Amino acid sequence: MDRKWIDRGMENLYAEFGETRVEKAVEAVKKFQVDVPSWTLGAFGGGRFGDYTSPGFARNIYEKLDDAAFINNLTGAASMVATHVLWDFSKDGMEGDYEIARKVRDECRSRGLFLGGVSPTCFTSGSENGSFIAPDGATRKRYVEQTVLAGRIAEKLGNKVLGLWFPDGSLYPGQVEIRDSYELMKKTLKESYSAISRDVLILIEYKVFEPNTYSTVIPDWGTAFVLARSLGENVGALIDLGHHHPIANVEQIVAILLAEKMRSGFHFNISYALDDDQAVEPNQQAARIFYELYRGGAVASSPSKNWAYMLDQASGKENRIHAIIHSIDSLHLSLAKAAIVDTDKLKEARRAGEIMLANRIFNDALINADVRPIVAKARMEKDLPADPLEAFVKSGYQKKIESDRK
Amino acid sequence: MDRKWIDRGMENLYAEFGETRVEKAVEAVKKFQVDVPSWTLGAFGGGRFGDYTSPGFARNIYEKLDDAAFINNLTGAASMVATHVLWDFSKDGMEGDYEIARKVRDECRSRGLFLGGVSPTCFTSGSENGSFIAPDGATRKRYVEQTVLAGRIAEKLGNKVLGLWFPDGSLYPGQVEIRDSYELMKKTLKESYSAISRDVLILIEYKVFEPNTYSTVIPDWGTAFVLARSLGENVGALIDLGHHHPIANVEQIVAILLAEKMRSGFHFNISYALDDDQAVEPNQQAARIFYELYRGGAVASSPSKNWAYMLDQASGKENRIHAIIHSIDSLHLSLAKAAIVDTDKLKEARRAGEIMLANRIFNDALINADVRPIVAKARMEKDLPADPLEAFVKSGYQKKIESDRK
Amino acid sequence: MDRKWIDRGMENLYAEFGETRVEKAVEAVKKFQVDVPSWTLGAFGGGRFGDYTSPGFARNIYEKLDDAAFINNLTGAASMVATHVLWDFSKDGMEGDYEIARKVRDECRSRGLFLGGVSPTCFTSGSENGSFIAPDGATRKRYVEQTVLAGRIAEKLGNKVLGLWFPDGSLYPGQVEIRDSYELMKKTLKESYSAISRDVLILIEYKVFEPNTYSTVIPDWGTAFVLARSLGENVGALIDLGHHHPIANVEQIVAILLAEKMRSGFHFNISYALDDDQAVEPNQQAARIFYELYRGGAVASSPSKNWAYMLDQASGKENRIHAIIHSIDSLHLSLAKAAIVDTDKLKEARRAGEIMLANRIFNDALINADVRPIVAKARMEKDLPADPLEAFVKSGYQKKIESDRK
Amino acid sequence: MDRKWIDRGMENLYAEFGETRVEKAVEAVKKFQVDVPSWTLGAFGGGRFGDYTSPGFARNIYEKLDDAAFINNLTGAASMVATHVLWDFSKDGMEGDYEIARKVRDECRSRGLFLGGVSPTCFTSGSENGSFIAPDGATRKRYVEQTVLAGRIAEKLGNKVLGLWFPDGSLYPGQVEIRDSYELMKKTLKESYSAISRDVLILIEYKVFEPNTYSTVIPDWGTAFVLARSLGENVGALIDLGHHHPIANVEQIVAILLAEKMRSGFHFNISYALDDDQAVEPNQQAARIFYELYRGGAVASSPSKNWAYMLDQASGKENRIHAIIHSIDSLHLSLAKAAIVDTDKLKEARRAGEIMLANRIFNDALINADVRPIVAKARMEKDLPADPLEAFVKSGYQKKIESDRK
Repeated sequence: MDRKWIDRGMENLYAEFGETRVEKAVEAVKKFQVDVPSWTLGAFGGGRFGDYTSPGFARNIYEKLDDAAFINNLTGAASMVATHVLWDFSKDGMEGDYEIARKVRDECRSRGLFLGGVSPTCFTSGSENGSFIAPDGATRKRYVEQTVLAGRIAEKLGNKVLGLWFPDGSLYPGQVEIRDSYELMKKTLKESYSAISRDVLILIEYKVFEPNTYSTVIPDWGTAFVLARSLGENVGALIDLGHHHPIANVEQIVAILLAEKMRSGFHFNISYALDDDQAVEPNQQAARIFYELYRGGAVASSPSKNWAYMLDQASGKENRIHAIIHSIDSLHLSLAKAAIVDTDKLKEARRAGEIMLANRIFNDALINADVRPIVAKARMEKDLPADPLEAFVKSGYQKKIESDRK
Repeated sequence: MDRKWIDRGMENLYAEFGETRVEKAVEAVKKFQVDVPSWTLGAFGGGRFGDYTSPGFARNIYEKLDDAAFINNLTGAASMVATHVLWDFSKDGMEGDYEIARKVRDECRSRGLFLGGVSPTCFTSGSENGSFIAPDGATRKRYVEQTVLAGRIAEKLGNKVLGLWFPDGSLYPGQVEIRDSYELMKKTLKESYSAISRDVLILIEYKVFEPNTYSTVIPDWGTAFVLARSLGENVGALIDLGHHHPIANVEQIVAILLAEKMRSGFHFNISYALDDDQAVEPNQQAARIFYELYRGGAVASSPSKNWAYMLDQASGKENRIHAIIHSIDSLHLSLAKAAIVDTDKLKEARRAGEIMLANRIFNDALINADVRPIVAKARMEKDLPADPLEAFVKSGYQKKIESDRK
Repeated sequence: MDRKWIDRGMENLYAEFGETRVEKAVEAVKKFQVDVPSWTLGAFGGGRFGDYTSPGFARNIYEKLDDAAFINNLTGAASMVATHVLWDFSKDGMEGDYEIARKVRDECRSRGLFLGGVSPTCFTSGSENGSFIAPDGATRKRYVEQTVLAGRIAEKLGNKVLGLWFPDGSLYPGQVEIRDSYELMKKTLKESYSAISRDVLILIEYKVFEPNTYSTVIPDWGTAFVLARSLGENVGALIDLGHHHPIANVEQIVAILLAEKMRSGFHFNISYALDDDQAVEPNQQAARIFYELYRGGAVASSPSKNWAYMLDQASGKENRIHAIIHSIDSLHLSLAKAAIVDTDKLKEARRAGEIMLANRIFNDALINADVRPIVAKARMEKDLPADPLEAFVKSGYQKKIESDRK
Repeated sequence: MDRKWIDRGMENLYAEFGETRVEKAVEAVKKFQVDVPSWTLGAFGGGRFGDYTSPGFARNIYEKLDDAAFINNLTGAASMVATHVLWDFSKDGMEGDYEIARKVRDECRSRGLFLGGVSPTCFTSGSENGSFIAPDGATRKRYVEQTVLAGRIAEKLGNKVLGLWFPDGSLYPGQVEIRDSYELMKKTLKESYSAISRDVLILIEYKVFEPNTYSTVIPDWGTAFVLARSLGENVGALIDLGHHHPIANVEQIVAILLAEKMRSGFHFNISYALDDDQAVEPNQQAARIFYELYRGGAVASSPSKNWAYMLDQASGKENRIHAIIHSIDSLHLSLAKAAIVDTDKLKEARRAGEIMLANRIFNDALINADVRPIVAKARMEKDLPADPLEAFVKSGYQKKIESDRK
């Protein structure tokens, strides 16, 4: 990807999509930021592959932040680290600790990073009967307190984004009374909400399956929406790409949330089976989602309109840092594609009722064009490597951590 | 299914579920009513099977009402006929006519029937560019007017239930601006709503696919819910079992709508592939849905709480009247199962955290018990045949219509 | 479920389905056996629920066999224990040991149990790059040797059934050359096959997803079939209900395997999301599968025609022993339903082209009838409790193991 | 898309993928041919949209061939026309006529076209009880005779490719005995096969759903494979992209068929919901499929190794000729992407176990690169327009047929 290659590519893009659109795409890419989750950098269970973890994984929060800082230095797009209260700010894995969070925030600062989205950890030990709908009041209270603490950390130490996900639901028909579960969830959410600053953007994540299978208490965007609206203006939905039925039209969910002016957020990852939590590939779905976000002013936009973006991926086998840089790169490419769509030609084709031509104009940007030059240019203008993954491979960092972290 | 068989069956049900529950189930079955759609009784295209239609189909509205009346006489559960404006109340297939509707209503009466749910026909000729989101204002106006007329027919002549379904959406990415489509739908709905009596229960149907494939403008219950709430208290969602992703948990949608106090409706049918519109089988899903409806007071309940129920099926190959009676029977069985669940034992098992036992108690009613005796008893108490399909087969009606309607 | 209740139920079943069919169903239930997997009884990771395991889990192979024996004593249907080489017959989790297997077999015998189906453990530690298609020849050799050992254990100590499942595949497009993977799998299978006795029934399991997501090397029954045929007559397919796309018609796979005379096997469990490995419920799908198996002479049949049946479930939250007994009960009920289908009436309805009537006749056995009396009678004739789960609950066993196994 | 734009694009492709690969891609695109189905050009029912057909549709076989010839002249890739016996070679819609076929062949020739793949029409009128498994022997005989005639037309007049698809199956459980259906299909296939020349490549199409829903008699590639193998060497499987469960890995099916040396065929189209039969978009799935086909020597290869390729799409709303040209263009793009994959770098990354890098190398060709210059160059070297759809729009042909064919 040398300078000439980039220039020729840009010339072709200018010729096809117009310089203004292409340069706006460059600007958008320069602005885009996505949280890197601390947990992806640590030892993530290989699951069926036994106790395997890809070599060089970070053994503690300091090493995680070292890796995150290295990634941010290469990509310029990952200055914020997403955290989980019980994984990152807890002594015993049962309760969070504000002081630890403050210390982690300081460690971030010293590496040029910030604390990004914060989540209470409502799964893990002690959640076997649920969290916000646990039949036992003491258990619910424990999770509410953790959630309120997470809200305070988000407000005082982080970027004012609080992400909520609950493992609650049921494995078998009859196990719970579905309607009661929903009502209890609503009530416990209200309880938590009332104790959290209105300055915090609270995002309610939905998930159609897993860990419960027959029912999950917030299965779809509709449920998240209704619950969010029942709380207040500072509450939105949290979309994770792997949390839907296969072939769901996620870009349409984005469009409706934008139309309804519900500021929301994304957990990016990719899935082939169900909720695979794999690294993002620059596919059409991602580009179509970014098209809605970009047209709706929710990305590379003003802080008050920008949605919250976070990677949420787990690398059981693949190199974790490769996987994160690859995802950031894929999001950059998707955003660039979205930004160059020739909306004038598109409108014209639509006005003429020319279905195939409209589709072709859309796909010329989203599928056919090579937007790597746009992304490369954006990076170079920020004095960053054109290809951050290549730069990572050449840096020797992986070798170093494999040897240091034995 | 002789008297003895029924009595022995009832004895076993009493012994297992208690006489009170079982007799309540009998009462519920006696009360349950479901609309029979006029279109199912006519010539419904065999699709891929060419121009085949199952023999004896009704050739006009009078024959449809004859068949409906015969079905009602056998089942006691189908006194209302659902109609479509352009199929049933139109001279030209483009506009509805109140006078025709009045005449059909009178024909119903003379057969002991009533006009049930009414729908404007927003698909068929002239809808190729959409209905409520057609780019052309005149087209939208035409569909709004038809919808308002349908509302008036529902209010003055029918059971005050208006069902809305729109074929609008897109086949290919880029064909429409998804967000604009949603906003236009919302606007056109508001326009129609403002001209319809608040006494009418308006139901917004959603459908994830078809006839458009890439996007449908109201794809899921969440969208229907948000749109319904944006209109007013007399608007609900219309659930059709075949309009979801496979393995969607529809009973949970019911539970949430009930929790949110949105009075809604059902189009019953069954599907193995996608939206097959086949006759209902008495499977667990149906029983689980009825469990939520029954517990929520939405079935066999007071007129103001009862949801609206309609069959929506098409019989390309199978005998149409068999298929309708089979569906009614299946709904009766499902309701009976739902009504006998031993909720006391269930609560106890849940309180003890016994997951498998709770599931077994639930399944004992929903899967294991034979509830045909309950349904037979309910019918016999209304002086109806215990097995209406057997009665139909023996009646000679099919032979008669095949010969009369050549 | 007292004697009277059972008698009345049997009378009703006799009246509807004929005494011959119903008594044949009783005999079939008496004969049916299914392997209980040792692993389900141990500590099975709670996954997302943290380190939770349902209380009283077996801490070692002896306790697992104690539990299995208790289950067999209550159900009379679970005399065989399925084992995994690296979980049950290995010192280091990397290699199997014939002597340990012999010892486990002896422990089985002393408890009235037998060694059932044996599987090499091709996942867990060391499989992160695959097993039979691992790029590294030494790794492949290790798994081939383990497989051959498993074959020897199955032949000499077990029931001569060897089940093979491979985690091999890829997470991302491009990761492997798909065609090469398939060819290497075929080759490695051949290598293993040639060293295993022809007396062993070898079953090749397929799985559409997981642990790999983009591709699994044996994704569907077709692939398993082609590979099995390429080896020899003593090789079949292994069907696990959770290993398909949602709404796959598994009973049709059974029918085709029977038509092609490929003796095969089943891993029973149930799933709501994907491969949930939950306890079996007595639903229609199970009954339809048993209908094919029963009509094809593959169940409750002669040893040479009988397929191999095994539970394969994991109980993260629900009581493990409840879950196993529930599954066995569900299989019994499903078999009983399959056996009573009135195939004479069914043929007649089909001959007359009466689609709905055929479906109703089928469903009368598979959905509507209450077959618990059949299963209860079968058990009582074997001097077993009519309801083995109730008997388990009353036995005090759970309390005992919870206290003993702290 | 001017010359300069193309040259710059080619330069960038040379730089990234090497001149050899890129020029091989140009050659492959020049060679690629795909059958155009006559039916797509005619009046294809708008389905739910009523009797709408996109304007200018061909009213008879002559007009269809006129359109096909125009498309071929613009694309140089569509010299063969696929036909259906009862749609194209029949007087009464019930029986085929060799003489009509000969006449159509002559009409093709006079327009520079050839007769491509031929299919008996086993659906449409008279197939309501099935075709090859119809219970009535006379019906089966009728379809066998039509199939044998189609084989003779394929052999003597066409390109020696015969495609078979059957609507047979069932709508409801119990309607047919699944195993008997399979065995009857096998038998009827054998009967037909024995009367068809061994020079004809016979392709058996599978389809998981529709028009039957509960079961289709050849639901998946495995069934097609087993049936094909049971007939002879000249029989393969026919893959239609819309005939699978959502998210099926179709490229893997291709890879296995290639590994098993079963020469097969493709019906190209795209689907968002189920079997939508829409125009092909140049998405990753298409590129991944072409990667397997190209690596396996099944595309742009020798006549004896080349698979059979056909479009199978229906345009209810979109311009039919646009849709066909778009599909051809998309196949060209997909083939070009497949051909430039840097397999050397890929092998190296795989050898090093670098999962993410292998995926990125793969995606650089399949997703990131802009291959429109390759396709444009291939066309220009054949003296064809670089963008055939643009050329069509400019040609005035659409206006002409809309006016001529009123």
